[in-house]
Amino acid sequence: MLSSKSLRNKVLTIDTMNPNVKNVEYAVRGPIVQRAVQIEKELREGMKKPFTEVIKANIGDAHAMGQQPITFFRQVLALCSYPELLKDNMFPEDAKSRARRILQACGGSSLGAYSASQGIDCVRQDVARYIERRDGGVPCDPDNVYLTSGASDGIVTMLKLLVCGEGASKTGVMISIPQYPLYSAALAELGAVQVNYYLNEEKCWSMDLSELERSLAEARKHCNPKVLCIINPGNPTGQVQSRQCIEDVIRFAAKEHLFLMADEVYQDNVYAEGCQFHSFKKVLFELGPQYSNTVELVSFHSTSKCYMGECGFRGGYMEVINMDPEVKAQLIKLVSVRLCPAVPGQALMDMVVNSPQPGEPSYTTFMKERTATLSLLAEKAKLTEEMLNTVPGITCNPVQGAMYSFPNISLPQKAIKEAKALGQAPDMFYCMKMLEETGICLVPGSGFGQKDGTYHFRMTILPPTDKLKLLLAKVKEFHQKFTRQYS
Amino acid sequence: MLSSKSLRNKVLTIDTMNPNVKNVEYAVRGPIVQRAVQIEKELREGMKKPFTEVIKANIGDAHAMGQQPITFFRQVLALCSYPELLKDNMFPEDAKSRARRILQACGGSSLGAYSASQGIDCVRQDVARYIERRDGGVPCDPDNVYLTSGASDGIVTMLKLLVCGEGASKTGVMISIPQYPLYSAALAELGAVQVNYYLNEEKCWSMDLSELERSLAEARKHCNPKVLCIINPGNPTGQVQSRQCIEDVIRFAAKEHLFLMADEVYQDNVYAEGCQFHSFKKVLFELGPQYSNTVELVSFHSTSKCYMGECGFRGGYMEVINMDPEVKAQLIKLVSVRLCPAVPGQALMDMVVNSPQPGEPSYTTFMKERTATLSLLAEKAKLTEEMLNTVPGITCNPVQGAMYSFPNISLPQKAIKEAKALGQAPDMFYCMKMLEETGICLVPGSGFGQKDGTYHFRMTILPPTDKLKLLLAKVKEFHQKFTRQYS
Ligand SMILES: Cc1ncc(COP(=O)(O)O)c(C=O)c1O
Ligand SMILES: Cc1ncc(COP(=O)(O)O)c(C=O)c1O
Repeated sequence: MLSSKSLRNKVLTIDTMNPNVKNVEYAVRGPIVQRAVQIEKELREGMKKPFTEVIKANIGDAHAMGQQPITFFRQVLALCSYPELLKDNMFPEDAKSRARRILQACGGSSLGAYSASQGIDCVRQDVARYIERRDGGVPCDPDNVYLTSGASDGIVTMLKLLVCGEGASKTGVMISIPQYPLYSAALAELGAVQVNYYLNEEKCWSMDLSELERSLAEARKHCNPKVLCIINPGNPTGQVQSRQCIEDVIRFAAKEHLFLMADEVYQDNVYAEGCQFHSFKKVLFELGPQYSNTVELVSFHSTSKCYMGECGFRGGYMEVINMDPEVKAQLIKLVSVRLCPAVPGQALMDMVVNSPQPGEPSYTTFMKERTATLSLLAEKAKLTEEMLNTVPGITCNPVQGAMYSFPNISLPQKAIKEAKALGQAPDMFYCMKMLEETGICLVPGSGFGQKDGTYHFRMTILPPTDKLKLLLAKVKEFHQKFTRQYS
Repeated sequence: MLSSKSLRNKVLTIDTMNPNVKNVEYAVRGPIVQRAVQIEKELREGMKKPFTEVIKANIGDAHAMGQQPITFFRQVLALCSYPELLKDNMFPEDAKSRARRILQACGGSSLGAYSASQGIDCVRQDVARYIERRDGGVPCDPDNVYLTSGASDGIVTMLKLLVCGEGASKTGVMISIPQYPLYSAALAELGAVQVNYYLNEEKCWSMDLSELERSLAEARKHCNPKVLCIINPGNPTGQVQSRQCIEDVIRFAAKEHLFLMADEVYQDNVYAEGCQFHSFKKVLFELGPQYSNTVELVSFHSTSKCYMGECGFRGGYMEVINMDPEVKAQLIKLVSVRLCPAVPGQALMDMVVNSPQPGEPSYTTFMKERTATLSLLAEKAKLTEEMLNTVPGITCNPVQGAMYSFPNISLPQKAIKEAKALGQAPDMFYCMKMLEETGICLVPGSGFGQKDGTYHFRMTILPPTDKLKLLLAKVKEFHQKFTRQYS
C-alpha cells in the first residue's frame, strides 16, 4: 500500500531541494535566451514577426556564429578518433605524428580509455612548455598543471577547495563587477560569500586599488575574504588590464593574504593598439622571489576562446603556483572522483599548446587560419565600438580584448518605472523588448552586475561581419525608438 | 611590503581548506593505484622486481585493457571531427548519414559549438526512442532526458539537487554496501549523511527488504533519509537483481517516500544464465499508475561500459521520471552553469542509442563486434568465478553481470594483527603485498565497504584472456603463500 503522504507530495520539490542551488542565477542562458529559442521555434512554425531570424549575440560561442575550426586541429582529432586514417595519405605528416604521440599516451592507445585524473602526462608536459614560452622562460612544472573540462570545471573545482566556514568565518570570494556569471553561480552553489569589487567604467573597466581596498575592508566586517578573482582580458567588459594594474593586484594580494584566481581564457584575444596580454604568473615572477615564492595563484585557460573557439570539446587546463603540497594531494583526490576530463578535449588542448611549427607541413595553413580569425575579431571589435558610440544614449568603451562589448545605455525614467512595475530589471525589460521587436538576443547588464542606477547590455562581437552590421544597425534603430517611446 | 603573516602561512592549507573535500575517499584511484604507477616507473627505470609488468585489474577501463572500439562509432566521430571526410569514399553511407545528422544539430554544424545545456535535442530524442524500445514501449519524453559528462556527472548533479538541511534534518542517502565509491565521495563532498544498507553476500549480493527496513529505521533516528541508490548490474559485486527484487524496492520506495536513483550503466553486461536486465523504469510502469504516476526515479547510463567501453569520451545520460516541474527548471539552470557536456561524448551517446540497423551497410560488422565483445566478457566472467573458487580461502559469487568479481578472502589472524599495527585495513595490507610481490593491482574491499570482519578485493574481468589467466594463477599462488606465511 502507498501511504497517503507519497500520493500527496513529491520527495523533491522546490521547498525540499538544496537551497543553494535555488540561489544560483545564470544569465548567459537565462530567460532572454529561453525566449529566443522559443521565438526561433515560432518562426519555424510560420508565426509572423517583424523579423525573419533571431540573431544571437548572447554567448561567446564562436563556431555557432560561423567561425571555422582550425584545419590542423580537426585533422588530428579525426586521426585520434579513427586511427585507421593514419594509413591514409590524405593527412599531413605533422598531423599524423601529433596523433600518434597522443594515442601512445592513452591507455590501449585509445581516446576511449580513462586518462589520469590530472590529465594525460604528455599533454601536461606540453602545456608546461607552452607556458614557459609564453612567459619568456619562467619555469613551469607539469605537476602544477591540471587538465580540466573547460575552464568552468577548473574554476568550480578551485572554489570548492577554497570555500569553508559558517557565519562570520565563511569564505569570501572577491569578484569583479561586472563579472562572468559562472563565478556568482558557483559561489551561490557552494554557499560562499560573494564580495563585489567594481571595475572602473570611466577608466575603460580597469581595476582600482582603492576600490579593492574598500571592498575588502567592507567584506571583513561580515566574512573571511580569502580569494581574489580576476578576469583578464575581461568578460563581459572587454578590457585588457595593464602591466601596472596586474602588479598592483599581486602586491595587494600578497599584503592582504589573498589567494589569486586569474581567469586568462582570452589570452590571445587582444586587439587594441598599445594593449598586450600580461599573464599573472609572468608578472608575479618579475616581482621577485619575495612574491613568486609566496603568493598563491591559479590561472585558467580553455580551448573555447582565443582563435580556437572549440567550446564543445570542453578542453582546458589550470596551473597552480605555490600551492601547499598537502592541498595538492587533496586536489588530485577531488578530481579523481569524476575520473577524468574528456580525452578528446585533452587532445585538443595539446594541439593548442603544441601547434604546428615553422618547417612543418601544416605551419603555413595553420598560421593563415589563426591570423585570419584573430584579425577578423579585431575588426569586429573596432566596428562594434564605433557603431555603438554613434547612438545617442549609448556609450561604449573600446573592446580592447576578449569577445564582448558592454555598453552603457541610458534608459528613460518612464521605462525604468514600467520595468519595475513588472518586477523586471530595467535592462532586462529593454533587452526583452529588443528581442521581441528585432529578433536580437543580448544579455542585460543586470545578469553580470553593474553599479546601481547604471544599465548595460552585453553583446558578443562574434556574428559574421554582415550580420554584425545588421545587428548594430537594428540596435541603433531600436534604442532610438525605445527612447522616443518612453520619453 | 609583505605582511609577515603572508610570509609565514599559505592562504590555502590542509587546515583552512573545505573540510568536506578532506573527508572524500576514492579507493579506485587510491594508494594502491598510486603505488602501481610508481612501480611501473621503477620497472621502466630498470629496477629489479619479482615480475616484469604491472597487471591492472583495478578499474573498469575496457580500452586500456585492450578492448577494441566499435568501428562504426569511431568512423562517425572522425567524420564529425573533420567533415571534409564526408567527401571521401572510404566511409560507409550509414556512418556518413549519422555524422550529417549530428552536425546539423550542432551550432554552426560544428562539434566545437556549445550545445544546449541539457544536451543536443536530436540526441535526446534518440535516447528517448532507445529507452522506449528497451522498455517494450513504455513512453519516454525527451524533455526528461539530460545528457551528462559520463554517469558520474549525472549522479553528482542529482545528489546536489537532493541534499540539504543540517543536523537531524540533514538529507540521508541510502547506498548499497559494497558500493561504487563515487557515491560515498559525492556524499562526503556535499556533506550529506551516508546511510548504508548491506547486500546479501550469501544470496549472491541480492537486496533484502528487511535490510532496507533496518537501515532506514536506523537512519531516521539521526537524519532525514530521502534517497535510495541502487546499482544494477552491480559494481563492485557483479550481481544482477531479479525482477522481484526490483519490484520490492520500488514498493519500498513508494511506501517510505524515497527518491530512487538507479545506476544502470551496466545494462548490457549480463552474462549468467537465467539473469536478465530489468530497468527500474519498466518495472515501475508494470506496477501500474499508482506507482508510475508517483514514484520519483532517475536512471543513469553511460558510454563507458557495456560493449562500448568508451570511458574517455565522458558520454552519458539520465532520465528523470515524475520530477516536479519546478525542480526540473532548477536542474536545467544548474547544468547551465557549466555550459554543456562535451559534444563528442554526446555524439557518441547518440550512436549507442541509434546504432546500425538491419539493412544498413555497417550492421553486420557492428553486430559482429558487439557480440564478440559481450561474449568474451561472459567467458571471462565465468573463468574468473571458476578459477577464484579453486583457491582455498577465497569464495567468489557468480559474476552475473557488470565487469567485476568481489571475492571474499579469509585472512589469517596474524596478518590482520600486523595490518592493524600498521594502521592499515587488513585487505589493503593484503592487496599492497600482492602488488609488491606479483605486480597485480586490485582494490581492497575496504574501499567499497563490507560487513565488519569480512575481507574482499575487487578485480575487473577486463584483462585479455591470457593475462587474466596469468593474473588468476598469480592470485592463487599469492593467496596460498600469504596464508602460509601468516598462519
Ligand atoms: C571569463 C570566462 N571564464 C570561463 C569561461 C568558461 O569557458 P569554458 O568552460 O568553455 O572553458 C568563459 C566562457 O565564456 C569565460 O568567458
Ligand atoms: C556503477 C557505476 N556508476 C557510474 C560509473 C561512472 O562511469 P562514467 O562516469 O565513466 O560514466 C561507474 C564507473 O565505473 C560505475 O561503475
